[in-house]
Amino acid sequence: MTRSDRSPHGGQPPSGTARIAVDLLGGDSAPAVVVDGALRACSADPDLHLLLVGPRETADEVLGALAVHDRERVGVSVVDRTVGMGDSPLRHVRRESTVRAAAEAVYGGRADAMVSAGSSGAAVAASAHVLGRLPGVRRPGLAAHVPTAHGPVLLLDVGVTIDGTMLELVQHAVLGAAYAATALGVAEPRVGLLSIGSEPGKGDRLRRAVAVALHDTVLPAGGRYIGLVEGHDVPLGGPADVIVTDGFTGNILLKGLEGATARQRKAEQGAALLGVSGTVVVCHGSADGPDIASGIALAARLHREGVIPAVAGLADDLLTELSSAGGLTIRDAIGERS
Amino acid sequence: MTRSDRSPHGGQPPSGTARIAVDLLGGDSAPAVVVDGALRACSADPDLHLLLVGPRETADEVLGALAVHDRERVGVSVVDRTVGMGDSPLRHVRRESTVRAAAEAVYGGRADAMVSAGSSGAAVAASAHVLGRLPGVRRPGLAAHVPTAHGPVLLLDVGVTIDGTMLELVQHAVLGAAYAATALGVAEPRVGLLSIGSEPGKGDRLRRAVAVALHDTVLPAGGRYIGLVEGHDVPLGGPADVIVTDGFTGNILLKGLEGATARQRKAEQGAALLGVSGTVVVCHGSADGPDIASGIALAARLHREGVIPAVAGLADDLLTELSSAGGLTIRDAIGERS
Repeated sequence: MTRSDRSPHGGQPPSGTARIAVDLLGGDSAPAVVVDGALRACSADPDLHLLLVGPRETADEVLGALAVHDRERVGVSVVDRTVGMGDSPLRHVRRESTVRAAAEAVYGGRADAMVSAGSSGAAVAASAHVLGRLPGVRRPGLAAHVPTAHGPVLLLDVGVTIDGTMLELVQHAVLGAAYAATALGVAEPRVGLLSIGSEPGKGDRLRRAVAVALHDTVLPAGGRYIGLVEGHDVPLGGPADVIVTDGFTGNILLKGLEGATARQRKAEQGAALLGVSGTVVVCHGSADGPDIASGIALAARLHREGVIPAVAGLADDLLTELSSAGGLTIRDAIGERS
Repeated sequence: MTRSDRSPHGGQPPSGTARIAVDLLGGDSAPAVVVDGALRACSADPDLHLLLVGPRETADEVLGALAVHDRERVGVSVVDRTVGMGDSPLRHVRRESTVRAAAEAVYGGRADAMVSAGSSGAAVAASAHVLGRLPGVRRPGLAAHVPTAHGPVLLLDVGVTIDGTMLELVQHAVLGAAYAATALGVAEPRVGLLSIGSEPGKGDRLRRAVAVALHDTVLPAGGRYIGLVEGHDVPLGGPADVIVTDGFTGNILLKGLEGATARQRKAEQGAALLGVSGTVVVCHGSADGPDIASGIALAARLHREGVIPAVAGLADDLLTELSSAGGLTIRDAIGERS
């Protein structure tokens, strides 16, 4: 069985083709930057097909800027509503929105993957609701590739698990190891837990509990838990291929690193959503055109390499096992008296 | 009354002189880097006096490298024990250690300020125990100066309040505003709360509660709470002069920024401890000689400018008031049902 045979929905597209649903209204500067990003992505990758999800006139702007022979690679799904940064992410469940329609295109097999630079809460909620979570997964995690001199470090979660729990972080360690092996080609990925010192026992209650749990967790793809790592290990790389943290800390660290390196290089390509049954890339709300194009390219690569189905295959049993053994509390793990 | 008259201990040293107790055994590469840092600091500042706290032979190394006429600026307090990174920070309470002896030198008036690059937990515990906390202060906070194109941003806490509480973060906002006005010369400092989005309501339970509390808090020196800020606002500056967070998130972000900028510039000068009755600078455990020298220079400047007594004067009443009004819980603040 080839990897792409694992795709659960729709017929097989021609080899090499990737059909990406793009949320035209997602992002602080949407739709202008998304139009720009879609055009850049099309011109960079002749096997890319786009499904533009948004208002008719915005889609027409993209089509009008393309050469006639490229227009056949672009479809349109007309949707006028978006989910604003101030809205509840659950709004997508009640109303039609571009991000929900993009997820439905993936679910229905009209696209292989989706990209949104809108509210990450809305993108995650829509993806989880429409595409479904992997069995046993409590909450999906957003995984960012951070460039380092030792190759990319996978940092997750960067925005979903805002009040993170022990089970969520341990499941993200499993998903992160599977993703590093599949998408980053790392054999036997080393998984670290982000904390405030590398000595055992350093950290807050959550970290002390997760460290205990990870010590006893089987990781996929020969992955192994290497203990605590610190903030500088994310941009410098070295000790770990995958660095697990809660979504609050991960979001702040990632944005801090982006700010610190803004004048040197731009490495924003969006984060892959792990733990749902489909390929979803979420870009930063402040993404510009080249960032959106990078996010589309990441989504296309993940689809072509069959990464998300492979992650599911590697992680499925472990996630279910963790979920059913989920009775261990932070209090138990760190030996607190009630 | 001049600022230096506020110093509670000992006689007044000659104007311009700063007497700094230096923990010779603190730091991953101690004592070598501390010896190097002490020598650099002495040669940079002719009005600096050092009290070297540590083993006789290490102090002799410093003295031997100094010109004869400089040796009179260096005193020695012989102590052989340190507190290791793996030890409980409370070990200092039971045993003599270099960091405790340095705090005692400040308390006893034999030094004006102290610097340690050892375990920050031990430095904070020793300082709070020996020097005392300001009235009403629940936990001190470590405040780091982060250089930005808009001038320094004060980030606190960067390592003390590991499982931060609402009261601790609000008190740190008060201390941070007072420090920014005094040490950084910022009139009417703008105080932001670090979160994962700038829209009201973004963040975890703690942030949502602290945002409510800060909205109603009087800040010293004309300071005002400007709302939520994000990770990139720390290295880029702009919206806030003071950025408040818990010590877990702050430590990880600060170390991440240090890692990201390691190849560009080195800006490590240690963090000022706010909320204790004395001038204490804590350097990074991985500090090198120039970093230690910068930490000593910061301690000398804080003493000469009377910063810590001035912070106490500005913040005292507000801190006590917050502490006695401390019945508001996170649950109350964010309107959760029990």
